[in-house]
Amino acid sequence: MKIVVVGAGNVAWHLSKALHDAGQHIVQVYSRLDGRAARLGNEIGVSYITDLQHINPDADIYILAVRDAAIEIVAEKIRKRLDRHFEHQAEPLVVHTSGATPTTLLQPFFKHYGVFYPLQTFSIDRPITFHTLPICVDAAQASDVDMLFELAKTLTPKVYRISNEQRQILHVTAVMVNNFTNHLYTIAHDILQQENIDFNILKPLINETVNKIQQHPPATMQTGPAKRSDDTTIQRHLTYLEKYPDYRKVYEILTESILNDDKTE
Amino acid sequence: MKIVVVGAGNVAWHLSKALHDAGQHIVQVYSRLDGRAARLGNEIGVSYITDLQHINPDADIYILAVRDAAIEIVAEKIRKRLDRHFEHQAEPLVVHTSGATPTTLLQPFFKHYGVFYPLQTFSIDRPITFHTLPICVDAAQASDVDMLFELAKTLTPKVYRISNEQRQILHVTAVMVNNFTNHLYTIAHDILQQENIDFNILKPLINETVNKIQQHPPATMQTGPAKRSDDTTIQRHLTYLEKYPDYRKVYEILTESILNDDKTE
Repeated sequence: MKIVVVGAGNVAWHLSKALHDAGQHIVQVYSRLDGRAARLGNEIGVSYITDLQHINPDADIYILAVRDAAIEIVAEKIRKRLDRHFEHQAEPLVVHTSGATPTTLLQPFFKHYGVFYPLQTFSIDRPITFHTLPICVDAAQASDVDMLFELAKTLTPKVYRISNEQRQILHVTAVMVNNFTNHLYTIAHDILQQENIDFNILKPLINETVNKIQQHPPATMQTGPAKRSDDTTIQRHLTYLEKYPDYRKVYEILTESILNDDKTE
Repeated sequence: MKIVVVGAGNVAWHLSKALHDAGQHIVQVYSRLDGRAARLGNEIGVSYITDLQHINPDADIYILAVRDAAIEIVAEKIRKRLDRHFEHQAEPLVVHTSGATPTTLLQPFFKHYGVFYPLQTFSIDRPITFHTLPICVDAAQASDVDMLFELAKTLTPKVYRISNEQRQILHVTAVMVNNFTNHLYTIAHDILQQENIDFNILKPLINETVNKIQQHPPATMQTGPAKRSDDTTIQRHLTYLEKYPDYRKVYEILTESILNDDKTE
């Protein structure tokens, strides 16, 4: 199948490279930013465009790996281009890669639409191993689901059919375990930096916290002052955190949440 | 040096085993719980007691690896026992293992006092590699600091002299990166379980989040709707979380904290 990748951000970059490495036939990449489009196009040796008017209308799959707010705009432009393409016969499959966006956003524009959502955090300069990461796919039509499974399976054995509602739930929890966790690391890093203490001291603890939940349900691994209802320590921490009102609030709410949580009893 | 370990909980268990494995001479272990004392004593082949009246008064170091609220009570009992011990000449060094407790709590009882704080999360059934974990030591007298360094260095090269104030700060940040992070995993696990979605889908993301900060400062790795100020997604998540008011509050506060954080800009 011929693939067009729309977007050249973190997801588009890693996904394009992984598809290319898996032998998939990417025929074109697009970014509105010339530098990005060129970089990705050159990286995988395919032509690139910076204007959707020139999008190749003969692909089998269009992967819209753009930020959520741009999906609808991009979809509309591609529809117009397909409509103008006189010889175009078969309707292509158009998918986005967003955890947060329902596939139905694409419904007004395409007969075949769906989602191809790699559940991972991507940074442009960190290589990502695709063969251990989950890809969540869905589409309205069964034959489209099959096509997405086939494509995803060339990257990873972990392919799941996940409905719009389930994907949204997964996305909420992904925000918690990834974005919020990283923010807690950021808070710790910031406090220690201000106090001239080396953040590296915390890394073995950070690593062990994650290692623990590979085999055990996280609730059974909960420790700490809130879990022990150790008020003396909690109060001492809150007093210390008075100079960081924003961090203090985070401490307070998470402590309350642990105290409320009978699942960790 | 002859060591007595007071306590047989998670820290006492792993620390005793590590010291024993490192060839240190533990002469006695104590727990008020007979089963625990016996289990630890048998594990490392030393005598155990369940009454502090019988504590061996001839040790060089007493390690109080008990919960924070018990440190003072235990210290007082040991003091009484040392006072009653007619032949006792040299004053021993007495340390606790708490991240949250100032060493000065021991000052009324002992001439030589300090702290021996392994910065790690311990579970009784998970083996811990001591030679990569940091141990924070401190004592009022320089010779005691030397003695604690010497002892800690038999377990790990990562030994730090950390003052009471610094240790308290480290402890606050340890709670954030360990207890709070684990609680976020617990929330995600709970939500996914209720929605019949496999928590394992999130594990590659969880692992990559931690891998990223091994080389990069966490602030530079921040992603997600709050970082992008993506209100549509945040509002959609908050609407979904209405059925989990407690988790919704956690989501709200951490999102606000990321939005407020210019360090991640």
